[in-house]
Amino acid sequence: MTELIPLGTSSAAPTRTRHLAGTALRCEGRVLLFDCGEGTQYQLLHAGVNRSRIEAIFITHLHGDHLFGLPGLLSTLSLLRRAAPLTVVAPAGTGAALDALPGLSELDLTYPLELVEVPETFSSGEVYAGDTFTVGARPLEHRVFTVGYRYEERRRPGRIDAGRARAAGISETWQFDALRRNETVTLADGAVVTPDGIVGPGRRGASFAYVLDSRPCPGGRDLARGADILMHDATFGEEMLDRAIETGHATAREAAEVARDAGAQRLLLTHFSSRYADPAPLVAEARAVFPDTEAAEELRRYVLDAGDGERALGVGVAGAAGAGARE
Amino acid sequence: MTELIPLGTSSAAPTRTRHLAGTALRCEGRVLLFDCGEGTQYQLLHAGVNRSRIEAIFITHLHGDHLFGLPGLLSTLSLLRRAAPLTVVAPAGTGAALDALPGLSELDLTYPLELVEVPETFSSGEVYAGDTFTVGARPLEHRVFTVGYRYEERRRPGRIDAGRARAAGISETWQFDALRRNETVTLADGAVVTPDGIVGPGRRGASFAYVLDSRPCPGGRDLARGADILMHDATFGEEMLDRAIETGHATAREAAEVARDAGAQRLLLTHFSSRYADPAPLVAEARAVFPDTEAAEELRRYVLDAGDGERALGVGVAGAAGAGARE
Repeated sequence: MTELIPLGTSSAAPTRTRHLAGTALRCEGRVLLFDCGEGTQYQLLHAGVNRSRIEAIFITHLHGDHLFGLPGLLSTLSLLRRAAPLTVVAPAGTGAALDALPGLSELDLTYPLELVEVPETFSSGEVYAGDTFTVGARPLEHRVFTVGYRYEERRRPGRIDAGRARAAGISETWQFDALRRNETVTLADGAVVTPDGIVGPGRRGASFAYVLDSRPCPGGRDLARGADILMHDATFGEEMLDRAIETGHATAREAAEVARDAGAQRLLLTHFSSRYADPAPLVAEARAVFPDTEAAEELRRYVLDAGDGERALGVGVAGAAGAGARE
Repeated sequence: MTELIPLGTSSAAPTRTRHLAGTALRCEGRVLLFDCGEGTQYQLLHAGVNRSRIEAIFITHLHGDHLFGLPGLLSTLSLLRRAAPLTVVAPAGTGAALDALPGLSELDLTYPLELVEVPETFSSGEVYAGDTFTVGARPLEHRVFTVGYRYEERRRPGRIDAGRARAAGISETWQFDALRRNETVTLADGAVVTPDGIVGPGRRGASFAYVLDSRPCPGGRDLARGADILMHDATFGEEMLDRAIETGHATAREAAEVARDAGAQRLLLTHFSSRYADPAPLVAEARAVFPDTEAAEELRRYVLDAGDGERALGVGVAGAAGAGARE
């Protein structure tokens, strides 16, 4: 099971009840982190997420409220005597910032830090590949160079029609597994069973789009296409549209329009301005456009589940990475 | 009234119940901050301390657990549209680290940031002067260049013997105030009243010594001399003395010895290793040497109150500052 855990839903400055940007994605014991605002390492503790299980961290842009928790988290992982490499995917310039801080050099850390800096010329591509998933990225539209991310689980095997399998003579687990892998099975009597008519079509994996901070934009819509969960910048309500445009953020209504246009399954609003003590008006505004909308709640678990049906994916993030490694 | 509010009492990495180093001192609406580990701005919110009232921040050393909350706090003060200058006193190198981070340049901040970098050649001196107090510093003994601080309120006027004052013809508030300032008062009938015999000796102001991270050392003892409250590194218990020596920290017993030798009034232990879920054993160890010891509790308020008696001060932190301004 894959689950999302919002760690911080505040924009810019924290409030008494909201933390700065960060979202954990946990899949079969591995953890990915999207953004790392100040306090993320505390929120990981409160969420009961094992910090040692973090495999990669994806930073959208170099504004403090998305970044200033990274130095502390990297230091703490070293204190926990991490040995496994850690990947950080982040806009160009991140390495220089980290290098200027104490305790984060190669000599200081107990583990290899593999920094993948996304250059400002980046247009589209896969930036990370795990065993069971890939992460693609697209540029967004904010005041500084910003990239959004899309987590996508690999295609899953088709479902087996157990009745037809048994009728064809299949009875043992290894035989079912072979069919699931689209292989033929030779039975004890020499008969050959092929997957045709027994195993259904492969199914798409679950997908999650992380689109902040941004105005509504083509990159955001591409990342969100058919996503099971879209988490989108909703800093303001429509009454603050001018301010959203000025600051490079989206209104709740605009986030809902992205979800609708991209055919997302579910929308989580986040990055709320402190002027909204209660995000209910933002949710109401978005639901008028896209009913399956909620305000992301910190430390709540959202199950990321792909529907079983085949849906058009059309994800615009395949192709060459174009992201350079840290020098 | 002056009060101390510990914001973080953990060493190195946070735990579920302890935050990274930071202590607020609030005096007549003004706030001083000692260290600024990650999460300090959250703890200020939880403590109900008005962040806009921060007048100066004192950083002991450039280890992340004492520093990584500073960039976020500086950014938030800008978002709060602070206009008043803010002083940061910190070891040399702090400016270079801040300059490498986004959002902290002179152009980005809404207020002047006056960085006072303490050079590694620093030996002793006043590093900040407020209306009613001064802050002195001394080098400590840690793995990197570290300075401890001593907050000291200016000498307060002596107490007036109201009976003697009235007997001498003093009746109005302005007359009492003049005597308190050690001035003579000319009465309506031409008689001159001097403070002699009416106003007692000036009284010392309250003092607070902040001594971490450090081994027991002369600088720490000087800062602690006669202090009303000494907050001292007590990362370990005596059973971990070797580790304390190796890492440049103090044991609870050593902290108590500093308090005893310096004639401090009260000792607050802090900077606890995560191995001590409950600091009670550290407190017990220290009390065997210095009975008036407590473990600093996060968000609790400790009143900083100078005894009325005259005590030997002998504070070794007077003299030239020797600290350069930010370029």
